[in-house]
Amino acid sequence: MVNPSLSRYIEEIAQLVGDRLHGIIPDHHEVPDNLQRSMEYSLMAGGKRLRPVLVIAAAESLGASQKVALPVACAVEMVHTYSLIHDDLPAMDNDDYRRGKLTNHKVFGEAMAILAGDGLLTHAFYSIAQTARLGVPASDVLAIVEDMAVYAGPSGMVGGQVADMEGEQGITDLEQLRYIHEHKTADLIVFSLKAGGRIASATEQQLEALECYGRAIGLAFQIQDDILDLVGDESKLGKKTQSDVKQGKVTYPYFIGLEDSRAEVDRLTRVAKDALTNGDIPNPEMLLDIADYLLKRDH
Amino acid sequence: MVNPSLSRYIEEIAQLVGDRLHGIIPDHHEVPDNLQRSMEYSLMAGGKRLRPVLVIAAAESLGASQKVALPVACAVEMVHTYSLIHDDLPAMDNDDYRRGKLTNHKVFGEAMAILAGDGLLTHAFYSIAQTARLGVPASDVLAIVEDMAVYAGPSGMVGGQVADMEGEQGITDLEQLRYIHEHKTADLIVFSLKAGGRIASATEQQLEALECYGRAIGLAFQIQDDILDLVGDESKLGKKTQSDVKQGKVTYPYFIGLEDSRAEVDRLTRVAKDALTNGDIPNPEMLLDIADYLLKRDH
Repeated sequence: MVNPSLSRYIEEIAQLVGDRLHGIIPDHHEVPDNLQRSMEYSLMAGGKRLRPVLVIAAAESLGASQKVALPVACAVEMVHTYSLIHDDLPAMDNDDYRRGKLTNHKVFGEAMAILAGDGLLTHAFYSIAQTARLGVPASDVLAIVEDMAVYAGPSGMVGGQVADMEGEQGITDLEQLRYIHEHKTADLIVFSLKAGGRIASATEQQLEALECYGRAIGLAFQIQDDILDLVGDESKLGKKTQSDVKQGKVTYPYFIGLEDSRAEVDRLTRVAKDALTNGDIPNPEMLLDIADYLLKRDH
Repeated sequence: MVNPSLSRYIEEIAQLVGDRLHGIIPDHHEVPDNLQRSMEYSLMAGGKRLRPVLVIAAAESLGASQKVALPVACAVEMVHTYSLIHDDLPAMDNDDYRRGKLTNHKVFGEAMAILAGDGLLTHAFYSIAQTARLGVPASDVLAIVEDMAVYAGPSGMVGGQVADMEGEQGITDLEQLRYIHEHKTADLIVFSLKAGGRIASATEQQLEALECYGRAIGLAFQIQDDILDLVGDESKLGKKTQSDVKQGKVTYPYFIGLEDSRAEVDRLTRVAKDALTNGDIPNPEMLLDIADYLLKRDH
């Protein structure tokens, strides 16, 4: 059971972010109609908005407002969305559907899907820069820009994607799988937490606590994905299970078994929560609830 | 004839930028080997480095040093390079060669080419952010980040690329062609000039002068490209001429004829030079020489 106040919180933020993302490119910018439609199609394709929730919850845990955190929350969702559009391309995973809807290139064509991804990635940095107009010091906003470039870049998410692609020829050990999970999934989650902290002028100690929390829940999130793919309930997940096995993808359960994978998710959740508790975070409650929610989720 | 001191200047900067771009991703970042190779392959594929030259020349025209301008100069070359990699993809222009070398996807495969482009675009923002470590105020560096996101983004270069792609179904007027040239080519040139100005803490008046100069030479550069494709010397260009006509691409000469196109390049060059002269730029000589060089170029 999800804590009802957390459910409400997530819904509220998903609404807030969705509203802002709808028409995110300001009117005074001349964007070709089809490009605008293609970017919005994927932004509005019904994601859980987990990363924006984490940006805002981290900012609020240190006393900053949702309003100030909103542009960065939208930016991380744009980067996440661009990565899905490019991942789904025929040259990559060649997926026709995502969350029950046609993928971007199936609707708008491959060329437009590539450019919509490029546009979203670029515009994310515009959105981050707007934070300086809301009273956050320029040096903190610039640190968020730099973090985004690192966590989403060649040594971050893009690097994880390359490792995942190359791993299709055979992952031989857990360390390699962990590299993929850390960079392909956890890095953008770590970014979300640290960015929320920077928006609230976090101390170094607080930033470290948020980073540690983010690293742990990011990895737990991905291992839980592996577990749900193996033994989840298809009606709750809204997609077929055992796709990893069928595609010959190696996962955490493949290497260490189901029970040890579950124990690892438990352990990482405790690591995450302890980091917050020991990290001088004034209002950690929502982040603690989110860690439990991710641990217990069945979809 | 190119002014010999300008030739030397361009060579010197191309060397400086090439050295910095070689191994641009810091060693302490874990980048998958093939991704690193793919990004470097295209960064080192022998471009003219026009945009980095413009960043550095603009910064120097206002008294800033080459060293301080170098990270942004590298960033604009990364963004230019990513745009070429994605443009060449099978889903886009489907080119096998660029500047006599195999295109990125012909060497590394389509998936890696998409990711190398994504990596370069993302890392460009990291490079820009480094400027703050060289004494430029964070608020100015953040303005450069925002400019890059606008001029390279959905209402800038990506928008121009979409318009170009859609224009293959038939461009009917000069205004449409001008939109493509302005955004696909001129926007990143305008960015280069303004960023150089911001690095040197330009006044609003100086920024406007640099922007006006950039807009004019950017458009002139593209019209000159159209002209050279029609009547240039293949041995000097290093590629076949009349490719636009053969591909059914409309160009400036198509709409207004060769003589009026040449006159337009002349006019734009005057506009560019006048903007500098009237714009309170202390050392405009190199930028003035660059305008002449672009006007008279035969390749």
